[in-house]
Amino acid sequence: MKNSIKKSPGLGIMLVGKRKDSQSFIHIKKKACEEVGIISEVVDLPEDCTEGEVLDVVSELNHKESVHGILVQLPLPSHLSEQNIINAVKVEKDVDGFHPVNIGNLAMMGREPLFTPCASKGCIEVLHRCGVEIMGKKAVVIGTNYRITHFLVIAETSCYSECGTCIHPEEITREADILVSDVGVPNLVRGHWLKPGVVVIDMGSTLVTDSKGSRVTGDVCYEEAILKASLITPVPGGVGPITISMLLYNTVEAAKRAYQWSEKS
Amino acid sequence: MKNSIKKSPGLGIMLVGKRKDSQSFIHIKKKACEEVGIISEVVDLPEDCTEGEVLDVVSELNHKESVHGILVQLPLPSHLSEQNIINAVKVEKDVDGFHPVNIGNLAMMGREPLFTPCASKGCIEVLHRCGVEIMGKKAVVIGTNYRITHFLVIAETSCYSECGTCIHPEEITREADILVSDVGVPNLVRGHWLKPGVVVIDMGSTLVTDSKGSRVTGDVCYEEAILKASLITPVPGGVGPITISMLLYNTVEAAKRAYQWSEKS
Repeated sequence: MKNSIKKSPGLGIMLVGKRKDSQSFIHIKKKACEEVGIISEVVDLPEDCTEGEVLDVVSELNHKESVHGILVQLPLPSHLSEQNIINAVKVEKDVDGFHPVNIGNLAMMGREPLFTPCASKGCIEVLHRCGVEIMGKKAVVIGTNYRITHFLVIAETSCYSECGTCIHPEEITREADILVSDVGVPNLVRGHWLKPGVVVIDMGSTLVTDSKGSRVTGDVCYEEAILKASLITPVPGGVGPITISMLLYNTVEAAKRAYQWSEKS
Repeated sequence: MKNSIKKSPGLGIMLVGKRKDSQSFIHIKKKACEEVGIISEVVDLPEDCTEGEVLDVVSELNHKESVHGILVQLPLPSHLSEQNIINAVKVEKDVDGFHPVNIGNLAMMGREPLFTPCASKGCIEVLHRCGVEIMGKKAVVIGTNYRITHFLVIAETSCYSECGTCIHPEEITREADILVSDVGVPNLVRGHWLKPGVVVIDMGSTLVTDSKGSRVTGDVCYEEAILKASLITPVPGGVGPITISMLLYNTVEAAKRAYQWSEKS
């Protein structure tokens, strides 16, 4: 794109407040952008800013021609409405895929969203890249966080279960050929929850601090699961990095659409 | 509403072409509107009208103050884009609940759509009115038509399965405490697919013509199912009429919002 039309994709990132984990996620995203030639721009707002101030920044980024994707780093401080702010992002720049129009088109059969949320897209991408056949397999998703992964899994397999707060989730998970966990509870999924040969995607990401220091942990007890699973994504280093790649992918797509440019042109 | 503010809710119905089943559905809807004091208005367009002509009618209904709900009778002739036409309906008047913003807000946790699609809302309403406990029950939905019922079922139970074109759907359905079928294949669900005591919601509706004449048939083999199920909705006469009621409900809601009126005021 840079060579042929002298333009680079641009990503606008908005951070409200000074959460350490958010700052660290943004640092990773900025670095990833640099590596592939996406120009990123971070707008920092103070913890106590008003919703009006945040919406003004969103509006500015919506209008800015060099910004093709907008990322609102979540969670926002509790006095701000996540819904109002995400709804204000232009659908064509919603590279996180969280605008209700994008979610709605993702959820409906036969519709195509402009963007698919990065973590969920990453989960399906991992399965494809590892050559896992999805169609006809029994897939189970634990956790009802936004339900986005579910739409994608449903779209690809025809036999799907979901358990949120079942009394005995292990009875459901033990039947799974593909198990996706997106709960945020470390070591929730134990070895006896798994069918031998299962493919496990661990989308959990929780910061745990103990005597060994701080580290990010998934939902799955990795040491036990690895004895049962045919394939498993580790945490950290599994779904996380591919989620970042999907953000870059969506940003490039947004820029290509904005400039009506494709690799072939 | 009529007594207190001298206003009646209004429903605009758009029919393109002369499909007999669509005409009959609209006749039923108009009659139901009359019974409860909703003023309905049907706009007929010829089978060969252009998308522009349909969009003009939608725009007119969007602006008309006496119309609070707009219903586009589906299916549309194949030369028209259902997506373009439904997306053009004002979200505040989308009493069918099919606009992507409404679907998106329905699909996302913690969001509230302005309207929920009538058939799916009706399905949950039947369960509530019959005193069926949903939470913690194993619910199975067959059929992936728009997936809307699924969001509602997911929201109420925590243990949910879906089967589309599974090779052996009966293995999944036999575990269901609540079974919803929304496929459109007469007699698909047989007695041996059911667990004794199951609650069956038959959302299928297919016009069958044979030596006994024409009639509407559900997905479930009623004669077999009634021997197993603790509760079952018949076709016709089950989910159909309650779907109409939900349309009236949504239309009244739309009018109440438009006039900022409530029973208490």
